[in-house]
Amino acid sequence: MDVMEAIRTRRSIRNYQHRDVEEEKLRRVLEAGRLAPSARNMQEWKFLVVKDPSVRKRLAEAAKGQMFVADAPVVIVACGTICDYVMSCGQLSYPIDVAIAVDHMTLVAVEEGLGTCWLGAFYEDKVKEILGIPEKIRVVQMLALGYPEHVPEPRARKPFDEVVIFERWQ
Amino acid sequence: MDVMEAIRTRRSIRNYQHRDVEEEKLRRVLEAGRLAPSARNMQEWKFLVVKDPSVRKRLAEAAKGQMFVADAPVVIVACGTICDYVMSCGQLSYPIDVAIAVDHMTLVAVEEGLGTCWLGAFYEDKVKEILGIPEKIRVVQMLALGYPEHVPEPRARKPFDEVVIFERWQ
Repeated sequence: MDVMEAIRTRRSIRNYQHRDVEEEKLRRVLEAGRLAPSARNMQEWKFLVVKDPSVRKRLAEAAKGQMFVADAPVVIVACGTICDYVMSCGQLSYPIDVAIAVDHMTLVAVEEGLGTCWLGAFYEDKVKEILGIPEKIRVVQMLALGYPEHVPEPRARKPFDEVVIFERWQ
Repeated sequence: MDVMEAIRTRRSIRNYQHRDVEEEKLRRVLEAGRLAPSARNMQEWKFLVVKDPSVRKRLAEAAKGQMFVADAPVVIVACGTICDYVMSCGQLSYPIDVAIAVDHMTLVAVEEGLGTCWLGAFYEDKVKEILGIPEKIRVVQMLALGYPEHVPEPRARKPFDEVVIFERWQ
């Protein structure tokens, strides 16, 4: 599938089929994250893959009760492992680098016929407790993954000329 | 081009041909960013496209003298516009959302035969001064864009089993 087609057809999927994700598909999704670029090639990330239904249920509760997280056959918990490196532009590297890796995953998932949903609404301390994640590690985002049951319509985007400007701020 | 192929062949390009990027290709790259998902669909971003050679030269100086930034025919300055929204996971949304949008752009660029380089090494205050960017706006990353003159070998990545873990932290 073309990259642009994957970008155009990707949706945030909040309804999943009761169907496992094949091992080789899951591996390709994770591989897409592994290959992502990062500041100084630090690869300051770990991807914790949760399939256990009882653990997914606890993660759904930690995600403020978004129960579709329990229905998704896979939840990828994307963690930053070096969380104090600030680039000279003033930004911490790890949220950006983990986001790049997870974005790679979301687009390969589309190519594999799978759906994903980025999750930023969760209590990090609860997620860490459930999964035994050490204090110095940060959970940046979680990603629900599975076969879509319902694919929603695209959401509105701002017009091109509102988000793209040329040569100087205006 | 398949998404996975774009991911596998993407490199950080630091040598560019003296050749303009066609308008329709540039537009597709920017469109890929425009279509990206964001927290609460806020789309809290603006993409400032710089082609003026004298301005690119000043941006290269602000990027700690990385002069290939001046050689790239296009520099996309990716800005966060709502910079105080914290998701319940504890992360600011704008660095993550802008990174997602720029990652989309890097992969469509590969599909278009173009090269990119993420830039996090720059003095934000200087970039903002050069481009007249208001104080409350943050420059998250810059992206050099153009036809590659030299495509480097892939850089090493950590083994799969080092970055992917299953069910529980280990």
